[in-house]
Amino acid sequence: MAVPLRLTHLFSSPSSLPILRRRRLHGTLPRTLPLAASFSAQRAEAASAKTQDNPKSSKGSEQVITPRSQDFNAWYLDVIANAELADYGPVRGTMVIRPYGYAIWESIQEYLNLKFKETGHSNMYFPQFIPYSFIEKEASHVEGFSPELALVTIGGGKELEEKLVVRPTSETIVNHMFTKWIQSYRDLPLLINQWANVTRWEMRTKPFVRTLEFLWQEGHTAHATPQEAENETYTIEAMMGDKKALQAGTSHNLGQNFSRAFETQFLDETGQMQHVWQTSWAISTRFVGGIIMTHGDDAGLMLPPKVAPIQVVIVPIWKKDEEKVAVLSAASSVKEVLHSAGIKVKLDDSEQRTPGWKFNFWEMKGVPLRIEIGPRDVSSGSVVISRRDVPGKQGKVFGISMEPSILVAFVKDRLDEIQSSLLERAIAFRDSNIVDVNSYDDLKA
Amino acid sequence: MAVPLRLTHLFSSPSSLPILRRRRLHGTLPRTLPLAASFSAQRAEAASAKTQDNPKSSKGSEQVITPRSQDFNAWYLDVIANAELADYGPVRGTMVIRPYGYAIWESIQEYLNLKFKETGHSNMYFPQFIPYSFIEKEASHVEGFSPELALVTIGGGKELEEKLVVRPTSETIVNHMFTKWIQSYRDLPLLINQWANVTRWEMRTKPFVRTLEFLWQEGHTAHATPQEAENETYTIEAMMGDKKALQAGTSHNLGQNFSRAFETQFLDETGQMQHVWQTSWAISTRFVGGIIMTHGDDAGLMLPPKVAPIQVVIVPIWKKDEEKVAVLSAASSVKEVLHSAGIKVKLDDSEQRTPGWKFNFWEMKGVPLRIEIGPRDVSSGSVVISRRDVPGKQGKVFGISMEPSILVAFVKDRLDEIQSSLLERAIAFRDSNIVDVNSYDDLKA
Repeated sequence: MAVPLRLTHLFSSPSSLPILRRRRLHGTLPRTLPLAASFSAQRAEAASAKTQDNPKSSKGSEQVITPRSQDFNAWYLDVIANAELADYGPVRGTMVIRPYGYAIWESIQEYLNLKFKETGHSNMYFPQFIPYSFIEKEASHVEGFSPELALVTIGGGKELEEKLVVRPTSETIVNHMFTKWIQSYRDLPLLINQWANVTRWEMRTKPFVRTLEFLWQEGHTAHATPQEAENETYTIEAMMGDKKALQAGTSHNLGQNFSRAFETQFLDETGQMQHVWQTSWAISTRFVGGIIMTHGDDAGLMLPPKVAPIQVVIVPIWKKDEEKVAVLSAASSVKEVLHSAGIKVKLDDSEQRTPGWKFNFWEMKGVPLRIEIGPRDVSSGSVVISRRDVPGKQGKVFGISMEPSILVAFVKDRLDEIQSSLLERAIAFRDSNIVDVNSYDDLKA
Repeated sequence: MAVPLRLTHLFSSPSSLPILRRRRLHGTLPRTLPLAASFSAQRAEAASAKTQDNPKSSKGSEQVITPRSQDFNAWYLDVIANAELADYGPVRGTMVIRPYGYAIWESIQEYLNLKFKETGHSNMYFPQFIPYSFIEKEASHVEGFSPELALVTIGGGKELEEKLVVRPTSETIVNHMFTKWIQSYRDLPLLINQWANVTRWEMRTKPFVRTLEFLWQEGHTAHATPQEAENETYTIEAMMGDKKALQAGTSHNLGQNFSRAFETQFLDETGQMQHVWQTSWAISTRFVGGIIMTHGDDAGLMLPPKVAPIQVVIVPIWKKDEEKVAVLSAASSVKEVLHSAGIKVKLDDSEQRTPGWKFNFWEMKGVPLRIEIGPRDVSSGSVVISRRDVPGKQGKVFGISMEPSILVAFVKDRLDEIQSSLLERAIAFRDSNIVDVNSYDDLKA
């Protein structure tokens, strides 16, 4: 079965308190909805910081983000709040995934769906209500999930005869169905996947990392031989690629545990009844938490281009009214050029904010590349491009031609470079941390 | 709020019994899982019919589909079973959506997601557990949903202080969050959508049409003025287009009902506090049921090309071994040509079945176009193309050139034509049935 993922062990400091406790330190919040209210209060602070916008001090949007080195956990929550990735639901431990956070998840879905299709897996959907008796059929399953179950006991106004489990994972119900669908070796391998919400009654919760309800994909496969099942697991691990680098995926060779518990059998080529060999694997919204923690910095979020909802933001710059038309027209053309080339681009032409404020805001939102266009750029037919992952002047290139083919090629190259660079850093960070821990003191550090 | 959809009133005969009762007529089924078991038994019949494959009688795969005119409800369930669109879950009234059925839903999702994005709506995700007290805050909501609720009363091994509702729809939790996010007119309009599972404790269930749990998208919007809300509703209805023709969508102008119940207010341009004006709208997996009922016939499913998981099936035909290589090679080329043109194509080159069996099988699965390629077609560099929606020789065209540009243009034209033709038929059917009902006897007929 899919055991709880342990990404946080890698990235968060052992001293970080569960947010429930941390947030209560504020004291003044209504008792009924402490998390949500505190989150809301924090957001108001951010909004107020934004309002005190000052062209000279363009750090407005950063003021509410705790430095990462000072308090990792506070930094993580501040980034989620300020970048509007998620908010707290009204029920303890639940999370609302806001549009910017959900768009990251959609990028992951799109990537995985393509891979699943290429490797012969079909999407489908299983009901989320599982008879309680199913959970008890497989030993490791009872042990692993019993303490974490949410149970429906009333339906349509009546007490139910058998309690229903809100799925924590679907191995049991999948096997119940596999037993109906699989008769002969010709029905194998059976390779399926579902995108679904799952529920685990976690006591210590943190947005994306560990929530009562989360979203994931769960793959389930059945094979005629243990070798085939083993190969499936390798295929999946290769497919997960950089996902595995972040420890946000899980894959299991289940052997015949579930097929024996649910009598999932097939007639083999020699006419013998055999239990199928199975695997399961999953990637969840925890992966979004992993991205935030792995790549963020004091300025906020830093998104790998492949999952960024906005890959390039264009900030037009003008002072005099007579400059405005030419600058905005050039910015619009650049936007169209990039959009047509399949790049996710946003033009921030709002007039309520200064360019400096916008620079900081979109850095905080983790947009990989920024294009600046001012009157002089318009005259020279070029733009300035800044990388989110390389701070200051080092990450800035001047005089990139607006000519579509040149500009598109430059932007695509740079996005690829950022993608590789962020991945390399993440792997190096993980490896160095695995190698260097020789004592408990090292581990704490 | 999103009230239960009533598509079935339009399409199913009033005499159709709930499947639970119908299936029990078989008598021999285990008491614990009557639906699932009967479904499984039926599937075994189908499999056995397939095994008795006979090249002369190519009707093998149709034998288990009850004629539509004889018993509409039995026909509907037979089509779902034989085309492997769905199966029954272990809990009464739940449904497993199988890959072929889920692929239809994915086509609908893809279409709608594009439309949502074009019209400025963002996807996001709200938790499915709603505090029971929320449901009681809005009068029509309590009345509409109380009898249909599934309640979680135990979490993590403990009785909960407040029961949690498994969402039947999300207006209440959406408004709870909107109240936090909306402060000023600048935050409006707020246009969001979520793809989610919802739960309603229905007593009379039928696959796709009415199940305890189903999948849907639910759009929720908040506006500064009633006019804007009204316009949103019109935009959505225009967007739903052919969906509305099937009565499978629902859209509501909620006025200020929920904003008053949840105090969702904003500061308008004159500095006054105002309650927002809202809309909500939804399309569910019931739409798949609508497609089956609207377009199917005695041969099985008939899918509109836009939602068909397979738009074109290629059946190669050969008798002598020396013909096989040339036929299969031509069939593969044709497949590649269509695939490259973005057409969803399948080559059925299995050798266990006769061409006649395959014709019937893929007709039953509702594939809009069939391409037949035999030795004579290879010699003449042409193919035979048959339409699913026009039976027999009338729907068959001979001698279509294999030349890629000609073939692709022909196939695309034909798919467009089938799409329009099916929609016209559905609208004509609906309109004629609305106009002609003058008495209860007419209605029954």
